Amino acid sequence: MNADAFIAIDWGTTNRRIFRIENGVAQAFERDAKGILAISSGGFEKEICLIRDRHGKLPLVLAGMIGSNRGWIDAGYIPCPADIEALAAAAVFPERDIAVIPGVSVTHGSRGDVMRGEEVQLLGAFAAGWVPGSAFLCQPGTHSKWATIERGALRDFTTSMTGEMFGLLKSHALIGSEMQGDVDDDPAFQAGVAASADKDLLAELFGVRAAAILGLRAPREGASYVSGLLIGGDCRARLPLPGQTVHLLADSLFARLYSRAIDMVGGKAIPVDSEKAFVAGISEIRKNMK
Amino acid sequence: MNADAFIAIDWGTTNRRIFRIENGVAQAFERDAKGILAISSGGFEKEICLIRDRHGKLPLVLAGMIGSNRGWIDAGYIPCPADIEALAAAAVFPERDIAVIPGVSVTHGSRGDVMRGEEVQLLGAFAAGWVPGSAFLCQPGTHSKWATIERGALRDFTTSMTGEMFGLLKSHALIGSEMQGDVDDDPAFQAGVAASADKDLLAELFGVRAAAILGLRAPREGASYVSGLLIGGDCRARLPLPGQTVHLLADSLFARLYSRAIDMVGGKAIPVDSEKAFVAGISEIRKNMK
Repeated sequence: MNADAFIAIDWGTTNRRIFRIENGVAQAFERDAKGILAISSGGFEKEICLIRDRHGKLPLVLAGMIGSNRGWIDAGYIPCPADIEALAAAAVFPERDIAVIPGVSVTHGSRGDVMRGEEVQLLGAFAAGWVPGSAFLCQPGTHSKWATIERGALRDFTTSMTGEMFGLLKSHALIGSEMQGDVDDDPAFQAGVAASADKDLLAELFGVRAAAILGLRAPREGASYVSGLLIGGDCRARLPLPGQTVHLLADSLFARLYSRAIDMVGGKAIPVDSEKAFVAGISEIRKNMK
Repeated sequence: MNADAFIAIDWGTTNRRIFRIENGVAQAFERDAKGILAISSGGFEKEICLIRDRHGKLPLVLAGMIGSNRGWIDAGYIPCPADIEALAAAAVFPERDIAVIPGVSVTHGSRGDVMRGEEVQLLGAFAAGWVPGSAFLCQPGTHSKWATIERGALRDFTTSMTGEMFGLLKSHALIGSEMQGDVDDDPAFQAGVAASADKDLLAELFGVRAAAILGLRAPREGASYVSGLLIGGDCRARLPLPGQTVHLLADSLFARLYSRAIDMVGGKAIPVDSEKAFVAGISEIRKNMK
């Protein structure tokens, strides 16, 4: 067994991704639905045994909701500015050779924000040299993160419940029945991004129902249009400067949608592979723990 | 039985309000949960019989979702500008002496809006002389209506899914567990209205969770704060001019919340009794049908 080998887990609420990393390179990868909510109380030790049975009796570095008060051990949050060294220094150890990374928080007076897991990818993109030491990054998802890195440290960030809102509307809102069709970077999505310029989300959303009743939009365009409204609004609220470069850590569909929306609101998206960024970040954190 | 007596019903999706009106004055009133969704197919005739058993064999004038494609008979929509005369002229009659009022629609290019039921109250407030012939009105609710009346006709309006969004968030969102306490015009509500100035709803909503995790806000303040965010954003998006007068058709709690929010964003709210406005509007519509 290689001395620089370890197992890294991005252990979220509903999913987890397991990497066996050797010399900074992922040699094995698994993804499953065993997020922390699927693990019964006291079940984490057993899960670790099973993972080591498959990938070797290696040290582990765990990030994500596993370190929350609903996970295995509460690793807390470190405040911004937060860099790789600070994350490594604040890791907690439920067992020998098992490190759990803290989250990151930021407060501005009575307002605050938190992340847990995304910090590894965001700082990993910097550690790997894919983004400069001062950069603006976006990691879309259920709760989209928009972060500023300065001198290699997370300086500030904002979370938007963009993805969660899409799911809420589709599953539970009156306009859910109008949200048919697949979401993609199509004319309906782009119309939604354009309409988000009004910054009047609650009225634009009811407009989806009115448009259906009045026959102004085909039902199969509804989901893409609402996605455009939400993602367009997210990008407009976040892009501080015209021409702003956004380093986008996203998978295929999200990469297409956010690239288009960022472009439409006057920014410039540069894609970054989010899985590779995680491997780079967690490897750098482990290096700093030694 | 008086010759000027009739039964008016504001028959919505989940509730209905029944008025026996004589010479323009409500002499009897009932409210129950027998909205159109609670009436089985073909059940409206029987309901009408039961209502006439209680209130007398009088003519009926029905408004609201009863006239939608999910109600008793589809009364369609008349376009803006829409006045009392136009509503009366477009009424449909499922049976002799039973009139169902249409809704009102407005379109601007590919965008549109619809209302059904609110038009009676909005135009009734004008018919009764409680608002001038040119006025700006707000009727808060699940789907808040903001309407412009010009020369006694509805000229334009916007619907915001403010109330529905509050319910969605409380029942189904991750921040639902943070939305504790009662909603009222309290400091948390006012903080929400102030925060809505950022016009960044999706980030402010996630901030409710972050504030709870970081201990920045007491859990019992969550519901009021979110209500302030939503209602504040609704008022900011809608008030076109500083000092704008808004005629507010609202009940006690909504009246308090919207009055405060309208005031905080620079407008001036004037309360109008929404039940009396309905009675005035439906009486005027009936007069014009004769």
